[in-house]
Amino acid sequence: MAILDAQQTAAQTWFRQLRDDICAALEAIEDDGGDAPGAEGLAPGRFQRTAWDRPDPSGDGGGGVMSVLKGRVFEKAGVNISTVHGSFAPEFAKQINGAGEDPRFFATGISLVIHPRNPNVPAAHMNTRMLVTTRRWFGGGGDLNPSHPDEAETAAFHGAYKTACDAHDPAYYEKFSKWAEEYFWVPHRQRHRGVGGIFYDHLDSGDWDGDFAFTQDVGRTFRDTYPALVRAKMQRAFTPEQRLEQLRYRGLYAEFNLVYDRGTTFGLKTGGNTDAILMSLPPEARWD
Amino acid sequence: MAILDAQQTAAQTWFRQLRDDICAALEAIEDDGGDAPGAEGLAPGRFQRTAWDRPDPSGDGGGGVMSVLKGRVFEKAGVNISTVHGSFAPEFAKQINGAGEDPRFFATGISLVIHPRNPNVPAAHMNTRMLVTTRRWFGGGGDLNPSHPDEAETAAFHGAYKTACDAHDPAYYEKFSKWAEEYFWVPHRQRHRGVGGIFYDHLDSGDWDGDFAFTQDVGRTFRDTYPALVRAKMQRAFTPEQRLEQLRYRGLYAEFNLVYDRGTTFGLKTGGNTDAILMSLPPEARWD
Repeated sequence: MAILDAQQTAAQTWFRQLRDDICAALEAIEDDGGDAPGAEGLAPGRFQRTAWDRPDPSGDGGGGVMSVLKGRVFEKAGVNISTVHGSFAPEFAKQINGAGEDPRFFATGISLVIHPRNPNVPAAHMNTRMLVTTRRWFGGGGDLNPSHPDEAETAAFHGAYKTACDAHDPAYYEKFSKWAEEYFWVPHRQRHRGVGGIFYDHLDSGDWDGDFAFTQDVGRTFRDTYPALVRAKMQRAFTPEQRLEQLRYRGLYAEFNLVYDRGTTFGLKTGGNTDAILMSLPPEARWD
Repeated sequence: MAILDAQQTAAQTWFRQLRDDICAALEAIEDDGGDAPGAEGLAPGRFQRTAWDRPDPSGDGGGGVMSVLKGRVFEKAGVNISTVHGSFAPEFAKQINGAGEDPRFFATGISLVIHPRNPNVPAAHMNTRMLVTTRRWFGGGGDLNPSHPDEAETAAFHGAYKTACDAHDPAYYEKFSKWAEEYFWVPHRQRHRGVGGIFYDHLDSGDWDGDFAFTQDVGRTFRDTYPALVRAKMQRAFTPEQRLEQLRYRGLYAEFNLVYDRGTTFGLKTGGNTDAILMSLPPEARWD
């Protein structure tokens, strides 16, 4: 086991705690969702955890834990944490902030994707991570993916992230929400995946404690906001037509992840853990 | 309308005829499949044609015609033909055979993907095309994609392509079937998409007539072989478990097309016709 410095340990500990909190919040919704449309006859879902190791020539590349729930409110929810370290292959090192001259890296983070059963309830994605090369930074974000966008819901989600951003830097929300708008654009469909949120990377303001506190708040905001959005709509009836639209929307979601998402394409092409990377794909999708 | 030379006209005419023949063979199966499992209550499918133009600064970039059938034996079958011309963007021209110094190109071809409803019936893919830059060549292939591989069926498909290959060059089958084996490997899943067939590109033996005749035989082989494989199995009963395996197999199919398939990724990133390119995606898929 690699020896972590105090910042690495603090970040890793936080991501694990956030994972536990979010999984608990989603399992509580599963408990309360017995009479939700679509949940008929299904038991409350529970997260199943699977650990994986990252192969590394040194014999210790770190690893991660996938937590996957297939439930009655959440058709599929995956919450991954990982702490990995090693050396980037030379051709990749050049593309990574601060790794051009020294290819060694450390990364710890959390990544989650939630696909609810009820098309009225938005799907969601959140991830935050700390990266260390010769530089040290945070990145991540949270974004909402309804198949049926709802202005009030979108405003509530963005509003929560604006509050979190404003507490740290008045420029963050405008900058990071625009970044999400650019990042989640699907050129070949000429539309966005989802209704946005925030996206940030290479955050290194010179104040590590402040950057870490912001990253924690990005996670807390998701933890405190998304479950409430689910509870607000999980009892709404839905039609077969809405379900069909949801399945088609998930096709767009899969296209974005497989064609453009940096984490996915980078992970698949560099021998990452396939099951953990593709945990994001929807349980069912249609292109018809 | 661009003026085509005799070879371009001959190739375009052939691809259109092949499209008509294959669509007719599939529609005949739709007519005969009324009592196939899964077909209950469904009308025989018919191909719907949609023409598209390729935007080009010159005002004439050519275009194509999509033919899509959503039927009772074939859950989704798409047969595209296109004849396009123009100039590659400079950064792409460098990657294309013979386009480094002169970026002008002409391409005409046929591409089809068939997703049957019954999991006993294999999905299939075929495409052949003629390309013209400062060079002139053919490429294409045909491959079988069963979710439940069947040795006898695989042998029949490969055998038909071996016969077609052997009639033109005794080295073709070994070379082109190996090429398919390499091309349809999905590294992140450590398995192949499908059970292979043949794949070839940059075929320019110096005998254009011979290369065209081979390319025609690749199309004829598909036209004469695949419908028989469908008819052999379309009446077989299937279980919900087999259907589930088929939907999961289609997830792998979508992953391959969106992450690795050259035509798809190239097309999406160069502003091709999205509907025609993504015609290949399965009507329904699962990642659960």
